[in-house]
Amino acid sequence: MKYIEFDANRKFDLTPLGRITIDLNPVDYYKTLAESTTYRKYLGGSPANIAVGLSRLGKKCGFFARVSDDRFGDYVTDYFKKEGIDTSRIRRCENGEKLGLTFTEILSEKESSILMYRNKIADLQLNVNDIDEEYIKQSKALLISGTALAESPSREAALKALFLAKKTDTPVIFDIDYRAYNWQSEDELGVYYGIAAGQADVILGSREEYDLTQSLIRPGLSDGETAALWHSRCAKIVVIKHGKEGSTAYTCDGQSYTVKPFPIKKLKGFGGGDGYASAFLYGLLEGWEIIDCLEFGSASASLLVASHSCADSMPDVKTVRDYIADCKQKYGEMIARA
Amino acid sequence: MKYIEFDANRKFDLTPLGRITIDLNPVDYYKTLAESTTYRKYLGGSPANIAVGLSRLGKKCGFFARVSDDRFGDYVTDYFKKEGIDTSRIRRCENGEKLGLTFTEILSEKESSILMYRNKIADLQLNVNDIDEEYIKQSKALLISGTALAESPSREAALKALFLAKKTDTPVIFDIDYRAYNWQSEDELGVYYGIAAGQADVILGSREEYDLTQSLIRPGLSDGETAALWHSRCAKIVVIKHGKEGSTAYTCDGQSYTVKPFPIKKLKGFGGGDGYASAFLYGLLEGWEIIDCLEFGSASASLLVASHSCADSMPDVKTVRDYIADCKQKYGEMIARA
Amino acid sequence: MKYIEFDANRKFDLTPLGRITIDLNPVDYYKTLAESTTYRKYLGGSPANIAVGLSRLGKKCGFFARVSDDRFGDYVTDYFKKEGIDTSRIRRCENGEKLGLTFTEILSEKESSILMYRNKIADLQLNVNDIDEEYIKQSKALLISGTALAESPSREAALKALFLAKKTDTPVIFDIDYRAYNWQSEDELGVYYGIAAGQADVILGSREEYDLTQSLIRPGLSDGETAALWHSRCAKIVVIKHGKEGSTAYTCDGQSYTVKPFPIKKLKGFGGGDGYASAFLYGLLEGWEIIDCLEFGSASASLLVASHSCADSMPDVKTVRDYIADCKQKYGEMIARA
Amino acid sequence: MKYIEFDANRKFDLTPLGRITIDLNPVDYYKTLAESTTYRKYLGGSPANIAVGLSRLGKKCGFFARVSDDRFGDYVTDYFKKEGIDTSRIRRCENGEKLGLTFTEILSEKESSILMYRNKIADLQLNVNDIDEEYIKQSKALLISGTALAESPSREAALKALFLAKKTDTPVIFDIDYRAYNWQSEDELGVYYGIAAGQADVILGSREEYDLTQSLIRPGLSDGETAALWHSRCAKIVVIKHGKEGSTAYTCDGQSYTVKPFPIKKLKGFGGGDGYASAFLYGLLEGWEIIDCLEFGSASASLLVASHSCADSMPDVKTVRDYIADCKQKYGEMIARA
Repeated sequence: MKYIEFDANRKFDLTPLGRITIDLNPVDYYKTLAESTTYRKYLGGSPANIAVGLSRLGKKCGFFARVSDDRFGDYVTDYFKKEGIDTSRIRRCENGEKLGLTFTEILSEKESSILMYRNKIADLQLNVNDIDEEYIKQSKALLISGTALAESPSREAALKALFLAKKTDTPVIFDIDYRAYNWQSEDELGVYYGIAAGQADVILGSREEYDLTQSLIRPGLSDGETAALWHSRCAKIVVIKHGKEGSTAYTCDGQSYTVKPFPIKKLKGFGGGDGYASAFLYGLLEGWEIIDCLEFGSASASLLVASHSCADSMPDVKTVRDYIADCKQKYGEMIARA
Repeated sequence: MKYIEFDANRKFDLTPLGRITIDLNPVDYYKTLAESTTYRKYLGGSPANIAVGLSRLGKKCGFFARVSDDRFGDYVTDYFKKEGIDTSRIRRCENGEKLGLTFTEILSEKESSILMYRNKIADLQLNVNDIDEEYIKQSKALLISGTALAESPSREAALKALFLAKKTDTPVIFDIDYRAYNWQSEDELGVYYGIAAGQADVILGSREEYDLTQSLIRPGLSDGETAALWHSRCAKIVVIKHGKEGSTAYTCDGQSYTVKPFPIKKLKGFGGGDGYASAFLYGLLEGWEIIDCLEFGSASASLLVASHSCADSMPDVKTVRDYIADCKQKYGEMIARA
Repeated sequence: MKYIEFDANRKFDLTPLGRITIDLNPVDYYKTLAESTTYRKYLGGSPANIAVGLSRLGKKCGFFARVSDDRFGDYVTDYFKKEGIDTSRIRRCENGEKLGLTFTEILSEKESSILMYRNKIADLQLNVNDIDEEYIKQSKALLISGTALAESPSREAALKALFLAKKTDTPVIFDIDYRAYNWQSEDELGVYYGIAAGQADVILGSREEYDLTQSLIRPGLSDGETAALWHSRCAKIVVIKHGKEGSTAYTCDGQSYTVKPFPIKKLKGFGGGDGYASAFLYGLLEGWEIIDCLEFGSASASLLVASHSCADSMPDVKTVRDYIADCKQKYGEMIARA
Repeated sequence: MKYIEFDANRKFDLTPLGRITIDLNPVDYYKTLAESTTYRKYLGGSPANIAVGLSRLGKKCGFFARVSDDRFGDYVTDYFKKEGIDTSRIRRCENGEKLGLTFTEILSEKESSILMYRNKIADLQLNVNDIDEEYIKQSKALLISGTALAESPSREAALKALFLAKKTDTPVIFDIDYRAYNWQSEDELGVYYGIAAGQADVILGSREEYDLTQSLIRPGLSDGETAALWHSRCAKIVVIKHGKEGSTAYTCDGQSYTVKPFPIKKLKGFGGGDGYASAFLYGLLEGWEIIDCLEFGSASASLLVASHSCADSMPDVKTVRDYIADCKQKYGEMIARA
């Protein structure tokens, strides 16, 4: 069954809205950040990674963002251009705001933490004037990253995009993408996540992220109840992630589909989510069965946690397919299925 | 027909959320504000006026607000107490924010303009921690003034109250109450008015206010289409005001009811709206027919524009009834009906 | 002896820099501010009052200020024009900043307190681009009000004016004029008062104000030591005020001159200081003996505390002279001399 | 002749006040910053570098600063401790302010540019409560970095330290250290540099930096006139730097001493200034002749521009002496003298 109809005549397969940042991952890792001496620069930010991921998989992405008016702004814009992502709606900041930075501390393959530079930050300067209906009408889907809701004026820009997506019958994907930085309180989170989730056709998030989203609506729901809540609003597909326990997609016809991670030697404990999202959305755009979308997403996630970077290591279709085939040969056909 | 069910067991008939301010109206009016020398101090602010209006009509009001921690904060709190309004959720500001001031220039009975003091203002300091579910559960209805959405943190406080009202089956009245001050852009207006109106059971506003509210949803709608739009969301009653042309209430069963202003010798061109709202809501809480609610509102509005103040001049039930009877005797039974 | 040389060829007798505000004094006084119902509007702000005072005494004043871009900005600018004060350097604010308001609570002839509106306020928006050397070169003296140092950008504007006054050999009068509002800490006060006092030719302040000014230099000084400290910097005349005990001017040649208040029936406990300053500076500009300047200042102060307003009641030369003559006739020639 | 008397009984040889930041220098340099992929982390910030430089030369430093409350704050504090710098007055920020970052673009040995992260930055959060008289009394000299004057509250903290240094007879060294970032206008610069320079015993700066400092006092002065201006205030030694043309120290007895750079193979065009300052101040604290201080400073500067880092490469006394001896042997005794 097809849960979402994408308009084949539209130019962009997906237009994410949100942050483009820089990751600085230590070259000498498995140490504290204070001890690490050398860092490698990568493009980062969840919606940016998803755009790169989809582009590597052969899809055409647009993007709504603000970036810094400096060399790092050049860097990420050039990077997007090389990946084939449209940059016509990526504007420069005008008041010295800088690109977000994420320094990652990789203590072991399981323990990671991040030190973020997000004060007076470029991505949250996106404003309502940056969002135009025409561009959304050219997009098969709009992806809102929850972090874009953390502060004004980006918050209003994201909400305006949401209104215009509804107005132009553009499916909305809400990636909850919770980062504590920039938010003032849990109630503020509950308000804005609640508004965005209530309008979305597809929602992606972890159990903890759904709990934050539902705190002012109905706290304490199980996964099934969570899915039912959002199906009663606009959602057709509700994906709930449980880390290494796997993830489940609940569809509006009452079905659910579960997938587990593929076995892999991890280098770091992060980066998988954006691989998952881009590969899952690829399958959805291709019109695949939900279980196949999930498996494809899970495979991409595993490939990502084994690599040093995030965007830079996004795989193409063949790499994901080969990896799945390889795993299935080694471990059996059902290796990633619950 | 009864469009809204009010829970008779709840303690407060209405709990408005929003600004309590001070009006300074010139004693020597029909001059420019620069020329006027002497000003009389009144309690002001649309939701505050409505609370006073309803109290004079015998209803019990709660209130969510922040006021200044100074003599003027004392003044408005004492005023509310004398009127019998509950002040347990009216908190003092902690960072020197002051009560809003409205100096009114009354050039003639038709021409008025206002000079507002609303920088770093007390009422917009209301925050999510000021809003509790228990209080909303004790209220038969919650009234959100649109101006409370103009800035953070009041914006999130109002949206949290909206969520909790839905959670506790408390009818929501949205008084659009547009004031240009404090808003950043029309799109910002469109976003937040759109969100609030979409959740409201009763909406009150002028034609211009609905146009602002619908700008990102469907611009250019007629009155009938406007009503249909909001009926398709949550609204049971949509009241659209056209100034001296009168106003119409559209109900979710496809009916509409129109009323015109009563004849009066105006002193000033403002203040009628809050009289209208409080008297209309009084009728609604009493379970009256819609046309009777409207007539009662219209009569109160006329009484208000003939007086120097707003809150201070709010009439009791007998005064409104006598005035209506008087007008009908003089001008005929149908004087205020379209 | 002449302590300060004023250049007779300059166009303006004095150019104050600082706030122009509005006083709202209750008509129904000897009550709390919450209880008072009606307020009379007057021009206010210490440097503005001094400019009006000097104008009434026949002197020509310039002025550096920012005022609001609204009816109240019109009011104060028109007022200045009518008094003959040059308004070419009085600019309008561009971001909605409002004129400061001072609501006065007059509880008795001795007890007064004020409620100030000074958030995002017009006068503190004065910035370095508003200050030009040419205008200062046309001024016989520059008066800096200490309140102009309370916040940026006014703080830097005042300091720039101070630098340009030194550059153009323009005597600087520093009126400490302490108002707690807008200052962050006592050390901040100590820093900026210390800088300004160290560059001033004439300093006017109360004992408490000198203590604040000297807190980071040498705390705990007596009046005589205070004078010696500032004489060792740039000051020629140091005036220390002790309220109803009188005031003393210490001159750089080691002399001191003391004056007491004239007997008067007070209406309120404030407003005398600006009368004192303007009349004292009038004498100084006229080249009078210091003791005569002080007596003239003291007489004007007494007239002011007996009246309802401040700027509006500033006396002309004849009124002050008649009042002094009258007092001397009644109470003896030495009535105001210590 | 000894121009400055240092109190031998004080615990700290020098207490700098100002920023501690992080430099991120590309490992793959001679490329644009967008192209460089990998960065090495070093402690940075001019006053921090000077403290490390003096410590390496055997002097004991105090420090007034605010640093971030995160891993990078740990890093710089630990670094200081290892170098023997007292960290008792280095406090953590409380509102999420981050350590300044400087990404350096090294295009060639002559062309460098920097990309700074200085929005809501830790070092400018230093406030008046962080500055205590007791600590200054334990310091032989206080060094104020001009950048600490760029914004409140650090600005007032630096000015308070200046006042307390005068109060406790502590010599003040003013390192103009101009960075455009964080300053609002040239007049603001002129005001605060003018105030600090007017109170300093030793001033260090480039020709351009003195021009900024004198813009509101007397623009257009030559080097000799510049020195005379500051000698007429408090300065004993005025050092004016002309890059590769060398630098001159003007002393208050009318003498001047000039030194040129030592020949070196540069790696980058920056970093020399802090080596220069620390080695020059070392000589001054040792009571050397001015020309010997300058030569020592110049040698350290040359060593620094040949290395990848700044703080990390600060030389000890033997290294500087050996380098000078080596150069003199190769190029003649007068190699660095004008």
